[in-house]
Amino acid sequence: MTTGVRRRMGVEERRQQLIGVALELFSRRSPDEVSIDEIASAAGISRPLVYHYFPGKLSLYEAALKRASDDLASRFVEPHEGPLGARLLRVMSRFFDFVDEHGPGFSALMRGGPAVGSSTTNALIDSVRQAAYVQILSHLRVEDPPARLELVVRSWISLAESTALIWLDGRRIPRAELEVQLVHDFAALAAVSAAYDEELTALLRRLLKDEPAEGPFSDLVSRLIALAS
Amino acid sequence: MTTGVRRRMGVEERRQQLIGVALELFSRRSPDEVSIDEIASAAGISRPLVYHYFPGKLSLYEAALKRASDDLASRFVEPHEGPLGARLLRVMSRFFDFVDEHGPGFSALMRGGPAVGSSTTNALIDSVRQAAYVQILSHLRVEDPPARLELVVRSWISLAESTALIWLDGRRIPRAELEVQLVHDFAALAAVSAAYDEELTALLRRLLKDEPAEGPFSDLVSRLIALAS
Repeated sequence: MTTGVRRRMGVEERRQQLIGVALELFSRRSPDEVSIDEIASAAGISRPLVYHYFPGKLSLYEAALKRASDDLASRFVEPHEGPLGARLLRVMSRFFDFVDEHGPGFSALMRGGPAVGSSTTNALIDSVRQAAYVQILSHLRVEDPPARLELVVRSWISLAESTALIWLDGRRIPRAELEVQLVHDFAALAAVSAAYDEELTALLRRLLKDEPAEGPFSDLVSRLIALAS
Repeated sequence: MTTGVRRRMGVEERRQQLIGVALELFSRRSPDEVSIDEIASAAGISRPLVYHYFPGKLSLYEAALKRASDDLASRFVEPHEGPLGARLLRVMSRFFDFVDEHGPGFSALMRGGPAVGSSTTNALIDSVRQAAYVQILSHLRVEDPPARLELVVRSWISLAESTALIWLDGRRIPRAELEVQLVHDFAALAAVSAAYDEELTALLRRLLKDEPAEGPFSDLVSRLIALAS
């Protein structure tokens, strides 16, 4: 059965290898610029053989994006232990790791573009947003969120996306600073919303009372007080 | 020259009429669901005549989107007079008017989708974001923004978009409340960023010193103090 030095891969193994190679290329450059020839060459196989496993570049792109989406969603999972601010900060650090690893591909995907705007890719983006939303609610210990809390969480998720995209465009602000800033932004957006809503106020008080004096939330409050003075 | 009761339109006049009819239809339902037949019928002309003016649905969609983009960008223009909070609140009110008028089309466009993800549509979306960004900087009287201020303004613009999209999905929060909330969010995001940056702190102090005691910014501060107590 062996026709050469290289071991023959099974169908699924070959598919997975191609997805990995493609994801690496789609991450480092805009997917528009990556050709099937290049993917074939990087995988060490012929162009027709790539087409044997994937009907075209879009289906390979979607498979790579599915793997990246699963990877990102898994980084949102955080033990339900310790202060909330510290938990969110750890997730932000893993989120920026992901963004860093997949920079050009992440930008191209999130900014939209001819090759990347299929309904499958949009559904994958939405599934990652939904995974983030579900994780945050579970940490807030809220099952049936009121409309204003849902708005705070979902709009903060979009703020995290746009902050990461702006960071990628020149990296002019240290990412560690942005990770803390996004934790603070969450508290600030929740506080703005809570200022008009008693249910949110009660929730925010419950969450903040367990925050340590040296945590990111307390740090924000003392800095804002200094700013206002 | 008159072949019927209806007056013959000139080419440019007919194009403009078709764009208006199409924009109306694309605004009220997802553009995917609007057919050329329907546009022809609403404009009172034959389907082949529509194709005489526009090669296909995408080009008519892009022309309608261009008109809507120009309309939205024009709503950002606000006289440079009076307190900043009140100016931003008036712009938010006009922004929600626009979102209200174009609801389903706005959602479909901003959430992406098969029919609406061309490079032309993405460029139009970016041009509206850039128009908002330029307007805000001009009101802040900043010509060459530091990276942290650029981040605050651009990420707040994306927050305004996502807030509007979430509002459209069920309209469970009164829009007037969200208009005020977005003004507050701007102040909160700027304050979070300023807590780590002296240049932004100085800018924020300069901006806030002209805010009236009964304006939206002062209102926020007193509500937040009440929340923290």
